[in-house]
Amino acid sequence: MDVSDIEKAKKQRIEILEKLGKGVYSQIEHGENPSLTLPTRGLSNVKYDKENRIITLGSGMSKRYFLNVGHVRKFVQTMAMAALSKELIKSDKHTSLRSAFYQVRRTIPGTKIDVVDDQVETNKAIEDLELITGLTREQLHINANKAGSVAGEVVIEDRGDVIDWSKLGSGGWAIPSNVEDIIFRKVDAKFVIYFEKSTMFERANEDKAWKKLHCVIMSSQGQATRGIRRLLQRLHEEEGLPVYVLVDFDPWGVYIYSAIKFGSIALAHASDRLALPEAKFIGLMAKDIDRYGLRRHLIKFKDIDAVRLKQIKDYDWFKNSKEWQEELSRMEKLQAKVELDAFTAKGLSFMTDEYIPNKIKEKDFLD
Amino acid sequence: MDVSDIEKAKKQRIEILEKLGKGVYSQIEHGENPSLTLPTRGLSNVKYDKENRIITLGSGMSKRYFLNVGHVRKFVQTMAMAALSKELIKSDKHTSLRSAFYQVRRTIPGTKIDVVDDQVETNKAIEDLELITGLTREQLHINANKAGSVAGEVVIEDRGDVIDWSKLGSGGWAIPSNVEDIIFRKVDAKFVIYFEKSTMFERANEDKAWKKLHCVIMSSQGQATRGIRRLLQRLHEEEGLPVYVLVDFDPWGVYIYSAIKFGSIALAHASDRLALPEAKFIGLMAKDIDRYGLRRHLIKFKDIDAVRLKQIKDYDWFKNSKEWQEELSRMEKLQAKVELDAFTAKGLSFMTDEYIPNKIKEKDFLD
Repeated sequence: MDVSDIEKAKKQRIEILEKLGKGVYSQIEHGENPSLTLPTRGLSNVKYDKENRIITLGSGMSKRYFLNVGHVRKFVQTMAMAALSKELIKSDKHTSLRSAFYQVRRTIPGTKIDVVDDQVETNKAIEDLELITGLTREQLHINANKAGSVAGEVVIEDRGDVIDWSKLGSGGWAIPSNVEDIIFRKVDAKFVIYFEKSTMFERANEDKAWKKLHCVIMSSQGQATRGIRRLLQRLHEEEGLPVYVLVDFDPWGVYIYSAIKFGSIALAHASDRLALPEAKFIGLMAKDIDRYGLRRHLIKFKDIDAVRLKQIKDYDWFKNSKEWQEELSRMEKLQAKVELDAFTAKGLSFMTDEYIPNKIKEKDFLD
Repeated sequence: MDVSDIEKAKKQRIEILEKLGKGVYSQIEHGENPSLTLPTRGLSNVKYDKENRIITLGSGMSKRYFLNVGHVRKFVQTMAMAALSKELIKSDKHTSLRSAFYQVRRTIPGTKIDVVDDQVETNKAIEDLELITGLTREQLHINANKAGSVAGEVVIEDRGDVIDWSKLGSGGWAIPSNVEDIIFRKVDAKFVIYFEKSTMFERANEDKAWKKLHCVIMSSQGQATRGIRRLLQRLHEEEGLPVYVLVDFDPWGVYIYSAIKFGSIALAHASDRLALPEAKFIGLMAKDIDRYGLRRHLIKFKDIDAVRLKQIKDYDWFKNSKEWQEELSRMEKLQAKVELDAFTAKGLSFMTDEYIPNKIKEKDFLD
């Protein structure tokens, strides 16, 4: 990808939005009731695609009409978001979900009716626009929250700046919410590790573990943001790097992995831009507890942990996997968790000097 | 500050810790009951220092004895943390609160007694060590969580890397949890703005507002982390930059400002390394609502907002200020909040093109 590709992609997106507007305009000119067609959202149309191993939308489609009392509000909101998005892309500016709400909030002249009353409406309108156009909100220039950092021997170009991820001290590069227009200039790494915890990232970064392990390290705090998930996906798809997820031995850790790999129900419509079915789970696993003498660091489950584990075990994408059912059963039997932090009892650099290299060398992953 | 200063400071810290150990050792040699003297923690000894405008500890002191059933556990834990901290500084590595717990967790040989059972104990031991040594946990190499990013025409040196905060694309520099050893190489800015919201930071960064306004911009999400607070303090104290805090018009925004400026009750013992009494509040203020036509974007208070406002109004550091009492009364009368995001209704760059320059030019601050 290069600067000219970014410009070309922007033009295409503007064309898609203009086509949407022209379509509605032409329906009006032909005396038709303007309508929009889009995949049905909601749990009934969300399914786990076994073959591609992602959570995605089914084939259900719905139509939304302008001249329909139940539809008109959503219709107008979607068109208002499309107009805003086109302006954003044209002016090369980005906004947030919250700001987008304020930007389209206005009273329709001659009435007391507001285009939107609540952010819930604009959020839905943006999702609808994603479905109609096939573009993500990032491509529509509506950003999510930003969090997380990255380090490694990678040089990128972003907004004209050339940034070397290996020369950013103890901080690393702050991952933006939107990584669509980042250009990879040089990628000198064999894989990527996503850490559940920012303290693990700092520890690994202090050791320059990315140099020793020849990899990219990344983290936010807990769930990976959209920006991180897309960055992981791009590093995998465009640069061929395997992505490994390293989390606590508990249901919450497993779910962080799950969202990165399979996507999530709430974002089923965006799975092809966010999910990463090739991501691998490198622990903590039940068997690591004895191998690395972590038994004394077991932390008894609380009720909420046990309940969450049951839910996760029952997800289609884990239900279909024998090895995952076995692993989750082992966790269920233990009724206890182990944190990554426990490795520090064995030395501050144990995780990056021993644990991770062993996992990679032995290809000791869960898939 | 230079690299040699960093080395010198490290040596001094090791000496402080060694002196602590030698003191206890000498007490033992002299047949005394080993003891540690430290300021009393807890609400009874926390006070607001009107003159210096920070929340700080009073003069109450307490003594902790080794040969005292009620003290011995804490005594041993504090010494264990001191030993760990000395090793960390010597090896130039950092750990986290959670990891520190695992690092000192062990069974005392020949007994069934563990040095620590719970992280609460190590957290307290670290606070005690801060009080005894006068060093912060960052100086003791025990880091907090990391979050937030920064941009501006500033060049720093960190762990041998030279980092230009103006050349980091849409992401910015990820602020580490520990900024003690950062060296400011070139600071070309007139002030610093801390934004409550990361989306505001991204917007301002996209416009390169730091260039237009000739300032440094910084944000995490909500409350400023310890790393951010210390970085703000260092930019102010060492580089003479005024620090402005820009938050929503609501009690939560006011409290973000409050913690940056006055410190907090929980961290009263660390105020001199974290608080920034010269920080200024640049809004949103009640009067900005009409000046900038934001009245339609008022969001009615929920009960929790009203309760929080009452608490904040009653804090000593706001009670003593006539202008703050007036401002908080105006908020109380409105029983509504306004978000910074509302500015985007007036144009995506309105905040950095109009609002902030007006505030600075008119010196329209609350103190």
